[in-house]
Amino acid sequence: MVVGELAHERELIIIGGGPGGYHAAIRASQLGKKVTLVEREALGGVCLNKGCIPSKVLAYGAERLIAMQQDHFLGISAGEHIFDLQTLMKHKDSVIQNLRQGVEGLMKANKVEVLKGSAFFLSENKIGVEGSDSYDVYSFSEGILAVGGTPVLLEDVDHAEKGVLLNPWTIMELKELPQSLILYGNDYITLELAMAFHAFGSNVTIVLPEGQQSFPFDSSINKELSRILKKTGIAVVKGVHYKHAAFSEGSWTLALQGEKGPKTVEGTHLFYSLGTKPSLQNLGLDRLPIILTEEGLIETDQAGRTSIPHIFAIGDITEGPQLAVKAIQQGKTAAEVICGRNSENNHLFLPVTARTSPPIACAGLTEERAALEGYSVRTGEFALSANGYSSITGSKEGLLKVVIDGDNDMLLGVHAMGRGAIELISSGVLSLEMAARAEDLTFAAYPHPSLNEALLEAAEAFRGESIHSIHKAKISKVRV
Amino acid sequence: MVVGELAHERELIIIGGGPGGYHAAIRASQLGKKVTLVEREALGGVCLNKGCIPSKVLAYGAERLIAMQQDHFLGISAGEHIFDLQTLMKHKDSVIQNLRQGVEGLMKANKVEVLKGSAFFLSENKIGVEGSDSYDVYSFSEGILAVGGTPVLLEDVDHAEKGVLLNPWTIMELKELPQSLILYGNDYITLELAMAFHAFGSNVTIVLPEGQQSFPFDSSINKELSRILKKTGIAVVKGVHYKHAAFSEGSWTLALQGEKGPKTVEGTHLFYSLGTKPSLQNLGLDRLPIILTEEGLIETDQAGRTSIPHIFAIGDITEGPQLAVKAIQQGKTAAEVICGRNSENNHLFLPVTARTSPPIACAGLTEERAALEGYSVRTGEFALSANGYSSITGSKEGLLKVVIDGDNDMLLGVHAMGRGAIELISSGVLSLEMAARAEDLTFAAYPHPSLNEALLEAAEAFRGESIHSIHKAKISKVRV
Repeated sequence: MVVGELAHERELIIIGGGPGGYHAAIRASQLGKKVTLVEREALGGVCLNKGCIPSKVLAYGAERLIAMQQDHFLGISAGEHIFDLQTLMKHKDSVIQNLRQGVEGLMKANKVEVLKGSAFFLSENKIGVEGSDSYDVYSFSEGILAVGGTPVLLEDVDHAEKGVLLNPWTIMELKELPQSLILYGNDYITLELAMAFHAFGSNVTIVLPEGQQSFPFDSSINKELSRILKKTGIAVVKGVHYKHAAFSEGSWTLALQGEKGPKTVEGTHLFYSLGTKPSLQNLGLDRLPIILTEEGLIETDQAGRTSIPHIFAIGDITEGPQLAVKAIQQGKTAAEVICGRNSENNHLFLPVTARTSPPIACAGLTEERAALEGYSVRTGEFALSANGYSSITGSKEGLLKVVIDGDNDMLLGVHAMGRGAIELISSGVLSLEMAARAEDLTFAAYPHPSLNEALLEAAEAFRGESIHSIHKAKISKVRV
Repeated sequence: MVVGELAHERELIIIGGGPGGYHAAIRASQLGKKVTLVEREALGGVCLNKGCIPSKVLAYGAERLIAMQQDHFLGISAGEHIFDLQTLMKHKDSVIQNLRQGVEGLMKANKVEVLKGSAFFLSENKIGVEGSDSYDVYSFSEGILAVGGTPVLLEDVDHAEKGVLLNPWTIMELKELPQSLILYGNDYITLELAMAFHAFGSNVTIVLPEGQQSFPFDSSINKELSRILKKTGIAVVKGVHYKHAAFSEGSWTLALQGEKGPKTVEGTHLFYSLGTKPSLQNLGLDRLPIILTEEGLIETDQAGRTSIPHIFAIGDITEGPQLAVKAIQQGKTAAEVICGRNSENNHLFLPVTARTSPPIACAGLTEERAALEGYSVRTGEFALSANGYSSITGSKEGLLKVVIDGDNDMLLGVHAMGRGAIELISSGVLSLEMAARAEDLTFAAYPHPSLNEALLEAAEAFRGESIHSIHKAKISKVRV
């Protein structure tokens, strides 16, 4: 910085316009702050432009395609179904554009100043913003760092020019349907894409990374998910270690080390999803006394405040799950604290969802985690095959499960798989947050007939009293 | 009764095998009672065989038919759609049969004795059961009366042989699609059928009974529902009084008295739904000192106990809304109290739902009701058109609304219309039951993107702080 350089004065500067950043900007503006938001790419960030939103469009297309193929029993018949990925991708682009314009409109309506450019710290109170043909310096009273992350790259890859190597961002730009798709990962996006591309017509194999033996959910959900994947015809390779990937003659070969020796998986397209690394390069953070965690994330308190008290950090550059819902909560909390409210983040009961077929939604502790944490775990479970509304829709796959502290009947976790599970999980989150006991769930009234009743019956099953099953409650037999 | 006639001794006898009765039977059996259930027709009662279940099958068929017609934007195209009511009706019959067999299986598994026949009281402790070729007398220690009701009949109807006059039961047996269907009613079943038959291809007119000016929901839902019906092409006739109906020359004429004079509505088929009257005839109740309400319903306490302490009454023969969910709760409560538990019914937060397109689900007080009850009403509302997930699905109709006590921020009601509303309403019911404040809803985390976020934003809107709208909270302007 040139000495004496003029700095524009600002109140609150937010670096990064992803969901965390733009929620923070709007909330701070609602509470009376003058807000400046710096974004070097598109408003909405990875989530809106490259992540959750496009992935959900693909998942939704698959949901409807599968439904259409199954609707004959309802008296609905149609000619041959044709699926066109390009049309779905156009819809995805239009959704992204609409939502982005929505965020842009909200910035205007809330009088948030939006600067297009790359920001970096010049000091604890000053940033430079470099646009395509501009460079300006801004001073600020408070700052929120919300720069997000980028996909962790797959290592040991040899590929010739035509090998299509896809990560969670680039797969959203796919132009043609893969003939055979290998998905190397074990997160919601891997599972959503596996089921979506299978529905679209690709041959799909999931390879769980680094020796993993199962999916990332509660054991009951993992078991049902495995059963459904098997029935669907999606191969799952488990318990292997990745060695390398190579593309030659139109095909990828994933070389793996299994327990019983080497193993290979082949496919025309290779996708991987290995998490997100924080985008903290080129921010000038080395100029600041900001404390990082061992993993290279920014350390914060419950409000999101970093070791520099007037700078907050939110989203994928902080500890905790790399989910938009976390970033959104952190963004609003940081804004509120900056504006004088006494808010705190609450990551105990973040819902974890996957829009698979059928969808999965979980909140709180899994049975296994609760046992590890020393609870005297009991559970209640109810299969959707015994749910009345499932008979109507013909969607009998999935289950509802409650995890309960056997010492005091407190709800510890709710795990749902099935049509409507995502809408239903807020019942779980709110119950967990409000410290519900099993009897709070059984005392409530549930629409009849509905999927909701499966939550009731799971809570009743905990006491051996679900009406539509003869299950009995059991003490958890999880080995810890 | 012949003096000295042998009476078979039983512990708990339940008269009526509808949802209330069979839930009571199973719960009592779970808690150790020996249970006898008497049903003169099919297990499952009106709800399973003639009411909620068949209606939901029709509604679900319509949901899928509408969806299929709209899915081109997802890249899913199919040939011409053909809808066949008979196939859907076959699915309905098969759902009913499966669920009924399910209930029969549950009776066996729970060792509930099922008697096929008509029961009537011989004394406070004795009933006769008349089967097709049998007559037996049973004494009992405790009894639950769960005989339900029958549709209130439309009066002043002249019709020749071929006039198809349909009530909520008989419409479920319809063989061919009505060319034009008049629906005289204003309950969930009328609205579900109106939208379903419109989707199937009938010309549909709804006539609200007895001078009613609007639908039975919160004003915001009523307004959105009116808008959607108008857009869909379903006519709604309001503010009229019914005079008579006549069928001649292939057409029904409904003669109505409007504010500005007489009015007629014509259609090939006439449906009416005017509520349920209790089926208390031929039960020998006049032999018992059982107290009825002015409306001819059986008076009970909070546990369902009648004026005869060892006899309980549940479902449509008791006060309160005529909903399966109420009967189910009452059935379980009565069984629990009979088995020594200290249970009570809780009808404050019964969810009210309609599987319209899109569905409606409500719990707690409407804005208007809360104002009438003297609350200092405030509301928060969020339109699904601004919800991110709605952009993905293209289902932008509907809204979420919270009704809040302005004096203490306590939640009084939750009203939802939109895709997923029914699954979402359990969040409202549980929050209401657990005495949530607005901040309990805003503190929780919601999956992103999801319909659930509209509930969050409705609660935020109450404070003028929803992120994706520039609505401000307002003091209710309802006139009381």
